[in-house]
Amino acid sequence: MRSQHIVGAFDAELQGLSRRIAAMGGMAERMVEEAATALRRGDLSLADHVIASDERLDAAQRELDETVVSLLARRQPLAGDLREIVAALRIGADLERVGDLAKNVAKRLGAVDAGERPRELQSGLDALAEAAQSQLKDVLDAYATRTADRLAPMRDRDREIDTVFTSLFGSLLEAMMNEPRTITASTHLLFCIKNFERIGDHATNIAETVFQMVTGHEMPADRPKADRTHSLSGAA
Amino acid sequence: MRSQHIVGAFDAELQGLSRRIAAMGGMAERMVEEAATALRRGDLSLADHVIASDERLDAAQRELDETVVSLLARRQPLAGDLREIVAALRIGADLERVGDLAKNVAKRLGAVDAGERPRELQSGLDALAEAAQSQLKDVLDAYATRTADRLAPMRDRDREIDTVFTSLFGSLLEAMMNEPRTITASTHLLFCIKNFERIGDHATNIAETVFQMVTGHEMPADRPKADRTHSLSGAA
Repeated sequence: MRSQHIVGAFDAELQGLSRRIAAMGGMAERMVEEAATALRRGDLSLADHVIASDERLDAAQRELDETVVSLLARRQPLAGDLREIVAALRIGADLERVGDLAKNVAKRLGAVDAGERPRELQSGLDALAEAAQSQLKDVLDAYATRTADRLAPMRDRDREIDTVFTSLFGSLLEAMMNEPRTITASTHLLFCIKNFERIGDHATNIAETVFQMVTGHEMPADRPKADRTHSLSGAA
Repeated sequence: MRSQHIVGAFDAELQGLSRRIAAMGGMAERMVEEAATALRRGDLSLADHVIASDERLDAAQRELDETVVSLLARRQPLAGDLREIVAALRIGADLERVGDLAKNVAKRLGAVDAGERPRELQSGLDALAEAAQSQLKDVLDAYATRTADRLAPMRDRDREIDTVFTSLFGSLLEAMMNEPRTITASTHLLFCIKNFERIGDHATNIAETVFQMVTGHEMPADRPKADRTHSLSGAA
């Protein structure tokens, strides 16, 4: 991928960008994992930790953006390098959103446990959170190793996440109707599962960015999401 | 703002970027307005129109991104121009998300009207949608006229939107508890109001980007959102 021209200092700067993304990725992954754990255990202090982490991730993204702007201003990167730089900008934005979504799960915990949860849905919640985490981990590995070959199945995995989400959405709605005392907790859990589903979307965005960065062309085929128009289940 | 150097063709390219943003802004505004109207009237065919529009907005964003990458690759923009170019990239991403959110409201309409709505909340919904629309309109005007002086109050307006959202969230929860037959519609309306609230957030992001682009420094003060940690009301 990397081409001739001004090697040395410039290469070091590009590597610096990669390291920033890796660090942000690590933070985002940890936040998602901790948010899921806090939700499972009802652990408010772990939730507070996630909320506090989000500020560090936001700061890391601002620094990344500044680094990119300064790099563009000082250098005149060739096509391949430019692709890498723009990719860093995009991945950074997706990771920042992943952190926001994890924070939002953490923020809801108090509200979830102010009411009574439909406990029978916990295993479904765990499965959803784990699927999102594992997808995020795999796209970050693909970025770190600059390999595109395992990225194409990411869309299928995202569709699986959407399916799990849709099924959980229906179960929560049912729980609300059958056990009205779970309405408050279920409502907030709806937003929590939506957040995990969105984390899967951002992982897929990152997969697309990495694919383009590594191969120079777009990830093949479109992304027909399982959200049938006007469906009863949760497209949002 | 604009400085000396290679004027002419380059200036034309920068103006082209502005026109693209203006066009995308117009599309996003229309989609938000139409989504709100479709929701109010229960108009499924208008909802379908919004859903179809989103593809055009997505395509417009991809073209904008390509234009920016090609511009950066061919020119070596000076600091002020670079700020403008990076701003276009950011605003384009925010507008694309606004379109997604409007589309998501449109997609939920069928599900909302599969059940019975809590009709007494319609005026609150309208107020929220209008507040989001008006904020979007004003930041796009500020971008078009390159004026920063009316941008600082945007954060206060965003907090007002958050307050309206939080109050509606509580009312929907209440409706679900008091009138269980509205549970399905209310649940989907929760996601609709969340989407309008998020549109307000993106308008505020755009306000911050425009402020930085026009003045060269960050919009003053932080943005303490009204989403109290662990609160019962809807932080997501």
